[in-house]
Amino acid sequence: MGLVSLDVELGDRGYPILIGDGLIGQPEQWLPHFSDGVVVVVTNDTIAPLYLDTVRSALGGRLRCEIILADGEQHKTLDTVARIYDSLISHRCDRKTTLLALGGGVVGDMTGFAAATYQRGVHFVQMPTTLLAQVDSSVGGKTGVNHPQGKNMIGAFYQPRCVIADIGTLGTLPDREYAAGIAEVIKYGLIADAPFDRWLTENMPRLMTREPTAMVEAVRRSCANKAAVVAEDEREGGRRAILNLGHTFGHAIETATAYTQYLHGEAVAIGMLMAADLSSRLGWISVAEVTRIRALLQSAGLPVTAPTGFSTAQFMDLMSADKKVLHGQLRLVLLREVGEAIVTAATPTATLEALLDDWLMST
Amino acid sequence: MGLVSLDVELGDRGYPILIGDGLIGQPEQWLPHFSDGVVVVVTNDTIAPLYLDTVRSALGGRLRCEIILADGEQHKTLDTVARIYDSLISHRCDRKTTLLALGGGVVGDMTGFAAATYQRGVHFVQMPTTLLAQVDSSVGGKTGVNHPQGKNMIGAFYQPRCVIADIGTLGTLPDREYAAGIAEVIKYGLIADAPFDRWLTENMPRLMTREPTAMVEAVRRSCANKAAVVAEDEREGGRRAILNLGHTFGHAIETATAYTQYLHGEAVAIGMLMAADLSSRLGWISVAEVTRIRALLQSAGLPVTAPTGFSTAQFMDLMSADKKVLHGQLRLVLLREVGEAIVTAATPTATLEALLDDWLMST
Repeated sequence: MGLVSLDVELGDRGYPILIGDGLIGQPEQWLPHFSDGVVVVVTNDTIAPLYLDTVRSALGGRLRCEIILADGEQHKTLDTVARIYDSLISHRCDRKTTLLALGGGVVGDMTGFAAATYQRGVHFVQMPTTLLAQVDSSVGGKTGVNHPQGKNMIGAFYQPRCVIADIGTLGTLPDREYAAGIAEVIKYGLIADAPFDRWLTENMPRLMTREPTAMVEAVRRSCANKAAVVAEDEREGGRRAILNLGHTFGHAIETATAYTQYLHGEAVAIGMLMAADLSSRLGWISVAEVTRIRALLQSAGLPVTAPTGFSTAQFMDLMSADKKVLHGQLRLVLLREVGEAIVTAATPTATLEALLDDWLMST
Repeated sequence: MGLVSLDVELGDRGYPILIGDGLIGQPEQWLPHFSDGVVVVVTNDTIAPLYLDTVRSALGGRLRCEIILADGEQHKTLDTVARIYDSLISHRCDRKTTLLALGGGVVGDMTGFAAATYQRGVHFVQMPTTLLAQVDSSVGGKTGVNHPQGKNMIGAFYQPRCVIADIGTLGTLPDREYAAGIAEVIKYGLIADAPFDRWLTENMPRLMTREPTAMVEAVRRSCANKAAVVAEDEREGGRRAILNLGHTFGHAIETATAYTQYLHGEAVAIGMLMAADLSSRLGWISVAEVTRIRALLQSAGLPVTAPTGFSTAQFMDLMSADKKVLHGQLRLVLLREVGEAIVTAATPTATLEALLDDWLMST
């Protein structure tokens, strides 16, 4: 199976996404996209034992040092980024350095932020090793860390020079984490690509057995959709917000359960189904479509019911704390039809509350 | 005296520089350049008693909060920026917030970095209150903080939406600090603007008595020169390096004296004269020009001799530690002629050492 390549069109900040099986061990495919300086690999203690040797061999004499972080979202802080700065300085890394993020979204977000801010910006390459990172966080230039009072409150828009998505790394992913990535894959069909949505409904069994050709196709079409949205709205001034389908509901679910019960993709899966249901209540998509979307999510092993023990009022509060509230107005991403998401602040409160009543009571 | 306005041409990141006497108290001139969100003023405990009341009145109900930092370069750290984040979050500042930097270069650099990285970027406006900040640091988008192992090691290129240079604030500046700003003004004539260099030679007495029309003209032409260089090379890939005339020598002087003996502009003044001397030894400018430049610096009350007690070898070491060393090669900004700087890595070591021998022995 050959290499698939697609471009994120952002003028002089544009870059290629390379997708293939075994790419990590094929530096001839990606090293030409690096700067001509030294390379620093940033990874975590879960990923290092799996792939660091291969990356080391691929980089050879270009490798200046390795920075191995503790795995986990709780380490996505300014303090950890400060540790990356310390390493770069003590290894005398100059402005021509390339930082290579080897890992999932947390590693990518922090490495990207370090690259954006070390000596006012050095080269940055993403080598995502989870499905979620391959189809979502590694593409689009969002980098950053959490603040005790909020997720991703500190960060920068900073585009990588190249994204290297080796679907070979998805083989070792735990089932639950793989499914959480599929939730974001399903999202692209719903928001912007009805033919992809149909393809997913037909090919979900192949994807769930992790058939390489199916995974390459799913990653390619997800990245192509994300790249198109990002190219239109790099800094999230408008259209890019559609990428947040299910995220306002999902974020409330994650917060309500203190980030312990659901993976991000799982919460988004529930949130997307809630958004689909609301879209149907507003008369935009049919009840039959909502039922089909529920079945699609279930076929990927994703949850489709809300957590118990929360009132509608509590849930409304949690939703209002979301970063996407602009000037105090709750904006939701909904489906005008399958394959066409819109952002709206015009949802009647009564309709929203009725939706929450049904979802929070029925579970 | 009316308002002078000039534009930094950077496409969709372009912005106006407004120059005038009493501008801080004239919000009708600058508030239209702000975002439509709330405004947060960041300043320090030296500047706050002087101008914060005026800024407060000007902003009225738009002001969300004030962040008053301790004055001094030693506070230009990631920890201080983290304090700014804390304040922004606790005051529930959203993405539409404008951060207004009221103060000198340190306040501007830190506020700009906070603006570049809070929620992946909010609006940023510079209101520089020192001559150095008005003609140099507030224009061009360099933001950042120091690391224990190096100055400005952490930062971002992030352009303000507007620069408001009120030359009325220069009246309260101590003589030494004013002169240090004049050093950077003189730099622009030397590197890129021979007519301005002649104007300065003729008008230095007016500038030194702080005649408002002379100050406006000096700030305007300095900013115009800096804006032109920045427009050509926003991220310092090439030409922008000429703005560092005198800085490699100056940086070595600052480091050698542990940043206690000279203000930055004073060290740069000495460094510019050393660069002029070296340019003359390479046969590019005449000895008479070097003498004239020395006299010009002296007429602004700037030092023109190197500090004592350092060997040529020590000085060479300090110069090599400079950030502008690329792949181990020392690059110097020199004068091909007055009004035309070049960046060169081709200076013969023997010539450089002879220069240092003379400068370090003769003092």
